Amino acid sequence: MALIVQKFGGTSVANRDRLFNVARIVANTRNEGNDVVVVVSAQGDTTDDLLEKAAEITHNPSQREMDMLLSTGEQISIALLTMALGELGCPAISLTGWQAGFRTDRTHTKARIQRIDSERISNELAKNRVVVVAGFQGINRHDDITTLGRGGSDTSAVAIAAALHADLCQIYTDVDGVYTADPRIVKKAKKLDVITFDEMLELASLGAQVLNNRSVELAKKYGVNLEVCSSMNNVPGTIVKEVVDVEGMLIKGVAKDVNVAVISILGVPDVPGMSFKVFSLMAQRKINVDIILQSSGNEGYKDVIFTVPLDEMEIARKTLEENMGRFGGNKIEVADNVAKVSVVGAGMQSHPGVASTMFEALYENNINIHMISTSEIKISVLIDKKEADKAVNAIHNAFVG
Amino acid sequence: MALIVQKFGGTSVANRDRLFNVARIVANTRNEGNDVVVVVSAQGDTTDDLLEKAAEITHNPSQREMDMLLSTGEQISIALLTMALGELGCPAISLTGWQAGFRTDRTHTKARIQRIDSERISNELAKNRVVVVAGFQGINRHDDITTLGRGGSDTSAVAIAAALHADLCQIYTDVDGVYTADPRIVKKAKKLDVITFDEMLELASLGAQVLNNRSVELAKKYGVNLEVCSSMNNVPGTIVKEVVDVEGMLIKGVAKDVNVAVISILGVPDVPGMSFKVFSLMAQRKINVDIILQSSGNEGYKDVIFTVPLDEMEIARKTLEENMGRFGGNKIEVADNVAKVSVVGAGMQSHPGVASTMFEALYENNINIHMISTSEIKISVLIDKKEADKAVNAIHNAFVG
Repeated sequence: MALIVQKFGGTSVANRDRLFNVARIVANTRNEGNDVVVVVSAQGDTTDDLLEKAAEITHNPSQREMDMLLSTGEQISIALLTMALGELGCPAISLTGWQAGFRTDRTHTKARIQRIDSERISNELAKNRVVVVAGFQGINRHDDITTLGRGGSDTSAVAIAAALHADLCQIYTDVDGVYTADPRIVKKAKKLDVITFDEMLELASLGAQVLNNRSVELAKKYGVNLEVCSSMNNVPGTIVKEVVDVEGMLIKGVAKDVNVAVISILGVPDVPGMSFKVFSLMAQRKINVDIILQSSGNEGYKDVIFTVPLDEMEIARKTLEENMGRFGGNKIEVADNVAKVSVVGAGMQSHPGVASTMFEALYENNINIHMISTSEIKISVLIDKKEADKAVNAIHNAFVG
Repeated sequence: MALIVQKFGGTSVANRDRLFNVARIVANTRNEGNDVVVVVSAQGDTTDDLLEKAAEITHNPSQREMDMLLSTGEQISIALLTMALGELGCPAISLTGWQAGFRTDRTHTKARIQRIDSERISNELAKNRVVVVAGFQGINRHDDITTLGRGGSDTSAVAIAAALHADLCQIYTDVDGVYTADPRIVKKAKKLDVITFDEMLELASLGAQVLNNRSVELAKKYGVNLEVCSSMNNVPGTIVKEVVDVEGMLIKGVAKDVNVAVISILGVPDVPGMSFKVFSLMAQRKINVDIILQSSGNEGYKDVIFTVPLDEMEIARKTLEENMGRFGGNKIEVADNVAKVSVVGAGMQSHPGVASTMFEALYENNINIHMISTSEIKISVLIDKKEADKAVNAIHNAFVG
């Protein structure tokens, strides 16, 4: 007998039939003798419908009230799923974020979980009930409802698994695991049986979008065993865990990220401290800077070039233009017609040939590289957006086959 | 400066335009220097939509989960109304039932308010904010969400007004006050400026349906001044209060109630205790018995005839048939083609002519009376349902003109 946390996203609970499908998965897990805590998101389009209602009222809503509004989505899901479980004869009880003990900081719409007072969940498990918890939400110390932001339900699930010392946290999605590349782009993409937290983190942050990054960080921090699996077909998924399989594949995946833009600051005086001023400005505005390139000084001036998430491009440009005097550039240029393509794999640390294999594959396909970034377990290149899918296939072919 | 509680029903907040209409009423009240607490119901069809979602899953849902589901309706309303108030520059904050301190008993779907811990509301008022509270809901001592049942938002509003010692509790509806009869039936119906709690209670329980009965009882108990007014046009409504205006109209209203059925038990032995057994059975099943008629004993047997709410007719019939041996009747008959028409007015206590005027009006219109019931402030007759509107007009004409 084990304690298993199962998380189901909005697509998995979108309508009556899917709710019963989820209920059957949950009931089967319980019937096998396990304690089960289920975390669910809002049904399919509920969140969009609620956002639309708010947009009819104001384009500048209070973030507290947005949380009040959006948190109803998961509350509807948990009630309906619990009813479906009841219909299958599986005793269950639903708990909102606050009832489940999720305490967060005060940052509305993207709160961080501070702790989980899991007494209520434990009590209900002790009554032999499945506990159905609303993902994505909690309350702050003023008892105001907060939400966790994008992918928050994954984080809720991992946090509960950590708090309860669960044996496994299963994240059910519409894919049946983590692949070596997006199967929609690369036909020969293979499902991985196992992947490390670090590899998963690189893949998630690089746009693989199977698992929310914060949830993987949390799982790594607390040693929670994760499994990514499909709610649609009953096959083993991909296990995410700490241990590195040294005999495993050299690389674990090829990822494409089109949520990226390049910012170039031209004519920055080539004196110490200028780059620091630029990047501390970005940090103050909480803009994530990724790949950085700096031209060597030429006649006393240099160019500072870096990438930011596409949706932060405008605020980054505005911030830089307003503060141009502080670092002395003479022109800001932005470009959004780019994509980042990366290979990820803990195995590459000891294999110096990875970069050259990657660059060769791109060269043979006539794809130009604008920027390069490397870490111990990944290599990323920035290329033209229109060549991204071709690049993913070429690189996947070179490493995975 | 006064403290005013304003309650708006589902129709009043059904869409964007109506939400802004409500927001303007609230903002105006605040701009006149008042503290304002607003209680709102779920938007228009939201509750029906949620009920439909549940019905797709099960026809026998857990009542706890129904409360979890339905309480989202008001939560959506309070968030949207608070956003609309913000858009008008009126500082406001929304509170769910549990945040507003509504503590109820454990009866899911028709809980009773036990107390209101109004500290949070008071704190927010002290910050010069309008407080927008979700009606219809609270939590029990296990921190489970409960709902108050039909008309619950009226009760929420009156309970807050009582807890805060508010100067006035305004119930906004789609009519602009309490009328001497339903204006859709009686063209000459007049709006009342003032009515007593007792009169209002009789009118509400007799089917006038302007105010929920429990809310009037609560207002009477705690001396809360009520005003029934319209959210559509800005005219004074009807004040409901304790004081009787001795110089006022003889009768305050004529009401029709078609939610009524007659149950006849034929051939009950004419010995002591048989009626007691019948009505204690009804009381055990919480069936409200209203008018009672008993035929005089004939050859050792009598007939026991009484009215119940139409929607309790079948359970009453079933209960009686299953227990026929206990009171010895030989046949149960039910009839649902009846209506109850009543005149209400505290003034009639000292005017013995009321009954005869009423019966004369019915006689002149050739309307047959099946049963009669009187109290200090009302006279009710049971007649054929198809003659109900004619009867209301005839009686209204005789008393009000």
